[in-house]
Amino acid sequence: MTEASAETLQIAQDAFQDFCQGLAQGEWSAFLNRLSEDFTFWFPAGPFQGLNVGADKAKAFFEMVSQVFPEGLTLTVQQITSNATTVVFEVRSQGLMLGKPYENQAAIAFDIKNGQVCSYREYLNVVFQR
Amino acid sequence: MTEASAETLQIAQDAFQDFCQGLAQGEWSAFLNRLSEDFTFWFPAGPFQGLNVGADKAKAFFEMVSQVFPEGLTLTVQQITSNATTVVFEVRSQGLMLGKPYENQAAIAFDIKNGQVCSYREYLNVVFQR
Repeated sequence: MTEASAETLQIAQDAFQDFCQGLAQGEWSAFLNRLSEDFTFWFPAGPFQGLNVGADKAKAFFEMVSQVFPEGLTLTVQQITSNATTVVFEVRSQGLMLGKPYENQAAIAFDIKNGQVCSYREYLNVVFQR
Repeated sequence: MTEASAETLQIAQDAFQDFCQGLAQGEWSAFLNRLSEDFTFWFPAGPFQGLNVGADKAKAFFEMVSQVFPEGLTLTVQQITSNATTVVFEVRSQGLMLGKPYENQAAIAFDIKNGQVCSYREYLNVVFQR
């Protein structure tokens, strides 16, 4: 692993820890502080479907996530694949979705630039109902 | 990138090309020939939900995929993240699903061992109806 890759991995892992804390406890400020101003994220469904730009949108999105999982969602990392700019976490998630048992697998990609998370892409495998 | 990582990436990219050919044309033998005997794959829904083991199951699965997309499905690679054992392709897919327009994004992970694909994990973002 090159020095740039190792640094990217470390930054992404620190950010991922804050991300997990957000999911578990609904407290997102530590994670939001790690996002770049030009932060973008892509989500597959619902009011944030498609590409979203900016930290304000991110704040609104993650607050919505915590409303859907008020008791918190726990992630377990299965595998990490990374290079100098991107880190992909394959995870299992477990919790209660609006009170009902919820279990899923997901791939979560962070792009890292200048020590910040500049992009977040989630591939959810969640079963949505149209 | 280390030599092992470069070799893994090359093998995965060759396999991915055969995978795309299978999706586009329904002809899976080239891809299936790249799978190890202990090949496993994980899928989020339907008759193959969960972890599946063995090349026979893989053959049945990919033939089912081609029945769902009889006119073929086209993948466009957005981003590749890899290390010495795993390659993650983030893709867009486009085609007709049982005759209806279908567009999606997905993360597809290949694990490589001894020059073969030994594991395949798909994170689909598809909207399934329960």
